[in-house]
Amino acid sequence: MKEAIIEITSKRLGVTGVCNQGGHLVGVITDGDLRRALEKFNDLFHRTSAEVMTRNPKWIEKEALAAEAVQRMEEYSITSLFVFHHAGDKVPVGIIHLHDLLKAGVV
Amino acid sequence: MKEAIIEITSKRLGVTGVCNQGGHLVGVITDGDLRRALEKFNDLFHRTSAEVMTRNPKWIEKEALAAEAVQRMEEYSITSLFVFHHAGDKVPVGIIHLHDLLKAGVV
Repeated sequence: MKEAIIEITSKRLGVTGVCNQGGHLVGVITDGDLRRALEKFNDLFHRTSAEVMTRNPKWIEKEALAAEAVQRMEEYSITSLFVFHHAGDKVPVGIIHLHDLLKAGVV
Repeated sequence: MKEAIIEITSKRLGVTGVCNQGGHLVGVITDGDLRRALEKFNDLFHRTSAEVMTRNPKWIEKEALAAEAVQRMEEYSITSLFVFHHAGDKVPVGIIHLHDLLKAGVV
């Protein structure tokens, strides 16, 4: 978990993705997941990412309209989405934060 | 810290305020503050809220326009603001989340 925590801090988004060996996204660890893990485990640093992550994170296709990203964030009350090159390939090419959309004037 | 963590979870906003004995807001503990505290301390549960919180949290007056709240969140790249009855009294009457503003159609 130490590595995951350092990764979340370094990217400054409050979130990191968890991929399998094939590079496919299998989960997400957010600051909220860390908090819930703190409540659940008393040995957080000895837990694996798989034990802490939320499975099946929300995502959007690279070619989707930005307005659709906003709609999806609103629907799930989340502030970031993974971006996949193609729907279904689950290989993340980026992450989009609600603040990116605000700053771009989409919302 | 255990109490603070439970409070953050119970309110489902990823954040809790820290008030002094006079009921004046002196800090905020977000999920991000917890993560940074996890990196800094190896005995997080024995730390006080004052050691973990971010001082001088961002706020807005109750009578301010919602658009101003959005602008402030964008400026500071944050997703929630404390709401004070009067500027300067620092007695929180609520908290507003960027998702509240999205859902209300302000952005």
